Amino acid sequence: MTKVTAQMSVSLDGFYAGPRHDGDGDWLHSAESHGFFRVTRWATEAMSWRERQGFAGGAQDVNSDILAESFEAAGAYVMGRRMADGGEVPWGDEPPFRAPVFVVTHRPRPPVVRKGGTSFTYVTDGVASAVAQARAAAGGKDVAVSGGGTLFRQVLRAGLLDEFELHIAPVVLGTGMRLFDADLDVDEFEAIELTPTRVVSAPQITHIRYAVHGRAPLTLDDRGRS
Amino acid sequence: MTKVTAQMSVSLDGFYAGPRHDGDGDWLHSAESHGFFRVTRWATEAMSWRERQGFAGGAQDVNSDILAESFEAAGAYVMGRRMADGGEVPWGDEPPFRAPVFVVTHRPRPPVVRKGGTSFTYVTDGVASAVAQARAAAGGKDVAVSGGGTLFRQVLRAGLLDEFELHIAPVVLGTGMRLFDADLDVDEFEAIELTPTRVVSAPQITHIRYAVHGRAPLTLDDRGRS
Repeated sequence: MTKVTAQMSVSLDGFYAGPRHDGDGDWLHSAESHGFFRVTRWATEAMSWRERQGFAGGAQDVNSDILAESFEAAGAYVMGRRMADGGEVPWGDEPPFRAPVFVVTHRPRPPVVRKGGTSFTYVTDGVASAVAQARAAAGGKDVAVSGGGTLFRQVLRAGLLDEFELHIAPVVLGTGMRLFDADLDVDEFEAIELTPTRVVSAPQITHIRYAVHGRAPLTLDDRGRS
Repeated sequence: MTKVTAQMSVSLDGFYAGPRHDGDGDWLHSAESHGFFRVTRWATEAMSWRERQGFAGGAQDVNSDILAESFEAAGAYVMGRRMADGGEVPWGDEPPFRAPVFVVTHRPRPPVVRKGGTSFTYVTDGVASAVAQARAAAGGKDVAVSGGGTLFRQVLRAGLLDEFELHIAPVVLGTGMRLFDADLDVDEFEAIELTPTRVVSAPQITHIRYAVHGRAPLTLDDRGRS
């Protein structure tokens, strides 16, 4: 049965990149990229990720296994416009997804078909529509919500996310682009409840998978005060 | 050898309590307390924590073992003024620490000696002095920095923290008091580097212990882009 999932690498203080780089400057030398490369280092070093990007080498370890598993599970992707634009050149003729990608955007654009099974379809009528189209295209596999944080929060806020996996890098960035942020609109007397369903501890990264149960009221629990 | 440590329960989005409750209202019914009780529920339910508070019952499980280990390791405590004030009445005549507690405060006050080995010494010349006094009093055991987030960040920022353990509750609070916050003063091209040294996965809480290495520059890592 198709699940809607997400994979996000974050710092221990919850940033998936450094402070947002705006304007036409060089993203590669920005603080945003430095934070992003730090929290995704574990993936960059993994053989299965490198193979998907067309790079040689890399470590064949539990990190590589987790990435391979996540690529294998995804029958379709939903992606934010900024990530799709940023990846368009570096991903080249044969992007690493090997599956249909639905890009949530305000800018209409004809679909793009690349080699290796990857296509990009630009969805202008919202995230729920993109998820529905990805479900239909996933062939029974999962829909993977792939970057960035704004899209992740839209899907979580709308109750469309069934599970997600955080890859927690052992680093405090202090500042940057937050995965969880105020636009989740969680009332101060409620919370989004989760259950950790798998924890994998690697030397330089901790992988925790969560099932999402949804919003529930916070209850008064004064057992520790009486 | 004495280490300076800390234990903090946090939501997955990094809050150790709900939005800060100010003023004279009822803390117990505040949003702050509701968030706090949610992230500390795992401890409230643990036998070793309940025993320290003078409460019966509780679960004798891995969470209880971890709390017992942390109580046992602490030879002295450093505490924020707000936590010390808030606990003064509920902790009663025999507080759960059974060790000297050094309270960082701007308000001079004579020391208070309680039953069971707990004393409170009010330190007005800063966090480094409180840590030094706690080291001297710890008898070779660890110094435990105990709440709240402001004190945790002061100790981390000053490079005084050797390790800490986060107890990550599977919940997104969305708003509240952050453990890691901007007053850590981490430059956008640097980070505080850590190493996870122990990960324990319990059904409703994930315990991760980190060794603190300190500040290091973020380096350009474009292996994923070329």
